Amino acid sequence: MSNLIDFQVDPTSYRHWRVTYEGEVANLYMDVDEDGGLFDGYQLKLNSYDLGVDIELADVVQRMRFEHPEIKAVILQSGKDRVFCAGANIKMLGNAAHAHKVNFCKFTNETRNTFEAAGAESGQHYIAAINGTCAGGGYELALACDYIMLTDDGSAAVALPEVPLLAVLPGTGGLTRLTDKRKIRRDRADVFCSLVEGIKGARAKSWNLVDEVITNSKFAETVEQRAGEFAANSTRAASDAGIELNPLYRSFEENGDVKYSSVNVTVDRTGRSATISIEGPDSAVPVSLTDLVEQGSDTWMLRCARELDDALLHLRLNELELGNLIFTTRGDATAVLAHESFLMTHKDHWLAHEILLYWKRVLKRIDMTSRSLIALIEPGSCFAGVLAEILFAVDRTYMAEGEFEDNDHGEATITLGQSNFGLYPMANNLTRLQTRFLSDDGLVEAVQNHIGQPLNSDKSDELELVTYCFDDIDWEDEIRIFLEERSNFSPDALTGMEANLRFAGPETMETRIFGRLTAWQNWIFQRPNAVGETGALQRYGTGVRGEYDKKRV
Amino acid sequence: MSNLIDFQVDPTSYRHWRVTYEGEVANLYMDVDEDGGLFDGYQLKLNSYDLGVDIELADVVQRMRFEHPEIKAVILQSGKDRVFCAGANIKMLGNAAHAHKVNFCKFTNETRNTFEAAGAESGQHYIAAINGTCAGGGYELALACDYIMLTDDGSAAVALPEVPLLAVLPGTGGLTRLTDKRKIRRDRADVFCSLVEGIKGARAKSWNLVDEVITNSKFAETVEQRAGEFAANSTRAASDAGIELNPLYRSFEENGDVKYSSVNVTVDRTGRSATISIEGPDSAVPVSLTDLVEQGSDTWMLRCARELDDALLHLRLNELELGNLIFTTRGDATAVLAHESFLMTHKDHWLAHEILLYWKRVLKRIDMTSRSLIALIEPGSCFAGVLAEILFAVDRTYMAEGEFEDNDHGEATITLGQSNFGLYPMANNLTRLQTRFLSDDGLVEAVQNHIGQPLNSDKSDELELVTYCFDDIDWEDEIRIFLEERSNFSPDALTGMEANLRFAGPETMETRIFGRLTAWQNWIFQRPNAVGETGALQRYGTGVRGEYDKKRV
Repeated sequence: MSNLIDFQVDPTSYRHWRVTYEGEVANLYMDVDEDGGLFDGYQLKLNSYDLGVDIELADVVQRMRFEHPEIKAVILQSGKDRVFCAGANIKMLGNAAHAHKVNFCKFTNETRNTFEAAGAESGQHYIAAINGTCAGGGYELALACDYIMLTDDGSAAVALPEVPLLAVLPGTGGLTRLTDKRKIRRDRADVFCSLVEGIKGARAKSWNLVDEVITNSKFAETVEQRAGEFAANSTRAASDAGIELNPLYRSFEENGDVKYSSVNVTVDRTGRSATISIEGPDSAVPVSLTDLVEQGSDTWMLRCARELDDALLHLRLNELELGNLIFTTRGDATAVLAHESFLMTHKDHWLAHEILLYWKRVLKRIDMTSRSLIALIEPGSCFAGVLAEILFAVDRTYMAEGEFEDNDHGEATITLGQSNFGLYPMANNLTRLQTRFLSDDGLVEAVQNHIGQPLNSDKSDELELVTYCFDDIDWEDEIRIFLEERSNFSPDALTGMEANLRFAGPETMETRIFGRLTAWQNWIFQRPNAVGETGALQRYGTGVRGEYDKKRV
Repeated sequence: MSNLIDFQVDPTSYRHWRVTYEGEVANLYMDVDEDGGLFDGYQLKLNSYDLGVDIELADVVQRMRFEHPEIKAVILQSGKDRVFCAGANIKMLGNAAHAHKVNFCKFTNETRNTFEAAGAESGQHYIAAINGTCAGGGYELALACDYIMLTDDGSAAVALPEVPLLAVLPGTGGLTRLTDKRKIRRDRADVFCSLVEGIKGARAKSWNLVDEVITNSKFAETVEQRAGEFAANSTRAASDAGIELNPLYRSFEENGDVKYSSVNVTVDRTGRSATISIEGPDSAVPVSLTDLVEQGSDTWMLRCARELDDALLHLRLNELELGNLIFTTRGDATAVLAHESFLMTHKDHWLAHEILLYWKRVLKRIDMTSRSLIALIEPGSCFAGVLAEILFAVDRTYMAEGEFEDNDHGEATITLGQSNFGLYPMANNLTRLQTRFLSDDGLVEAVQNHIGQPLNSDKSDELELVTYCFDDIDWEDEIRIFLEERSNFSPDALTGMEANLRFAGPETMETRIFGRLTAWQNWIFQRPNAVGETGALQRYGTGVRGEYDKKRV
């Protein structure tokens, strides 16, 4: 198990980040340990990062929302002198397998999005305070912040040198945030992305690459002042103390299974499948907000979200050959709805609000997981409310029809909650049901009329909620045949197909990052001009430029 | 020159298509000549197609709009028995270089889009009448039609078998049109795209894969009836006789230059650049609509559009190493505006309307050309109205400042017309100026206040219309340095960068096809699972399945 990439870290184990808290403002210092790379063969110089650095960052952002609800502004800054961040480590990228590159970029993208979500949804605003070199992924970190401040010391600059230097794209949202977030004129964006040395001072401000340029002597003071202003203008309610995010209840088994308290991952290597079983609530609905806070990270809704999130990340990075992810649930649908309803009723309370927002992120993590996703709705399952949302995130749903032998749970049902109609929008800003029924709003309304009712297979089929219904006789065979067939398809073709079918309808900056930008970057990550023997990523640092096939494609 | 792919064909030379005209309805028969492939090494069996087949199809669609304005409905059908179209030829795809695959798909996509544009903009509606096998690119042809009719003979089916059979995507718009045009539930789309044999009969209709299923005996009659209905409901005005699209005035020179009557392509192989020089009007503005029709395909606005379009396609397919396309113009800005104004004034006349719509398509062809695009605004140039639009399509514009020695044209200017504010929207449905100024509508308005005024470099710079201005002393050096730098970048990184920067703002079905779908397809076209020795495209037809690396990326 020692080679597993572990997404669970905590502040006592951070190697690359420090956080200090002063009232409503947090100072977040990036101070990467050169020798702390996740893999061998590279040093993390100049605050460059690898997945390990980003796992810690994701943890910081997550804990900020749960453990430090008093924080309204986060100053993202460097712990090093005259260097903010040099971006993703190039040697790491050069050595990494294609799949790791792609998964690394996806995770870093998801984490950048959480900066923006924290500001927009929770009034925790990220401010980038750039004190020196800020290149590539370093500037993309800044671009994900709500406000960018640059010191004017004659050398500090922002840069996206990927194209001229590395023959790849600024793929962690860089190109998309230039055009869509900061709305930079595209010829200027073209110029900026061609300049290895980047842009500094007044020009950086006038092109809107940064929000403010400040003389070096006044930099620290002005940053503090702006953080205070963001905190003062934050929509975040007055704060309570936070809760602690306790270590997960988790064990890795020899055979690859992973057991959590409310989630179990069972691995079938022959079938190239993993089953993610979610257990419905095993504890009581909080009786009060005080009780909710006391339950803290043990409360079922939060515990289940954390466990599911960790399971998804583990499967993505550590189990590349398990192409089918099968979601099942077991438990009491009424209890699921009761837990969720408690949070919805109290969603003005910071913790209830944060737990629901976390589910929104976890559900998006499912949407973005490039495996074939299947849900099995069996007798005894509890696909209700938040768990029913999974049914509309997956590629196909199979529902058991009628009663099953040796199963005393009666027939399988789905129970929708109010939450399925707006609480957990996808990256395209539609609900999953709206995306499913893009053809006809009447279908969404028809479903909405059945909130709270257990819908059996006939009714679910009629309401177009499921792909197929099979009875006890056919159930196992049909699913086995489908999984076998799916396992025989090309994983790449499935990745491309799913990335196109899952996000129908409108596009947003977020879908554009994961769709257009990521797809082009992945293409480039396959091209000899980037990754071939004489490609720029391989040649980087040797003093010899990449040699390129000059044919345009 | 004999190996050049030539985009100029005419009905007398068609090998693969026949058209008959009956009143307001055209019957368009696909009847591919098996031995008529553009390259050696494959036979075009079962109405499968290669680029040569598609070049003829593009010509049909284009001529329909100019030579047959009386047509309001086009029945796209097969000239063969029990087979509609088997899609792109797999052996051709397997043999083709990556760059050819990508360019082939781009051109076919552009042609599919012209079906939809003909219906939406000109009331010429395409109806697919499917009499048998309709698979892959064959069904994608149908998906681009306004109405899909399928015979119910027990075997005729529609299918997108790319993923299971070939390990690639239905990349000619297939996936996007399933979700965004036909709004098919995504789990059904997933099922459909996994079925080699496709879907037929009532299920094809109930899933909205086709609009109508008709028993075989009534098929021909019903198709005719529907065509009549589409024609009757067409918004197209009562028709005049068409004009003839004469052969282009074109000569290919030994050194690669191409000379047309109003466009010249000059090749600089060392600099990996081609200059596309557009000559302003050399003939008088039509004095009347009768005069316009008499000028026919010789009228400057139409002639110039056809020549520019041909030049772009030639450079895309035949000159892969020319990474920089430099646009220049020469002539009288007032004359350009006068020619364009005449058409705008008379845009209720079918021919004036069609010429303007053609410019819209040609400008989109520029947007979609994956080369670095540069415009040079020199003394004596005529970037006005429709030609000024090119300035906002390219990646960068360089403008001459002040008078130039040895040039008696005075200072360079840009003159905007009303046309720059809505007549030629991009694929994202915004004007190019709106896309440029995504940050601020005030900037568009500011520019709009200067319609018809020659704007010198100071004014153009102030209005943010150009990237850089240089005077006589710096002009040549600056441009030379930029072009050299650009030529040294990785062509792939530039392709990815430009594809992301050019299409800021909203996405449409069209941008999604060229952005998300195409980018994923291009990625897959690089993956060993598709194109490697044991990949599905290579193995196709051998009776042995592709062997796949099962790692998910």
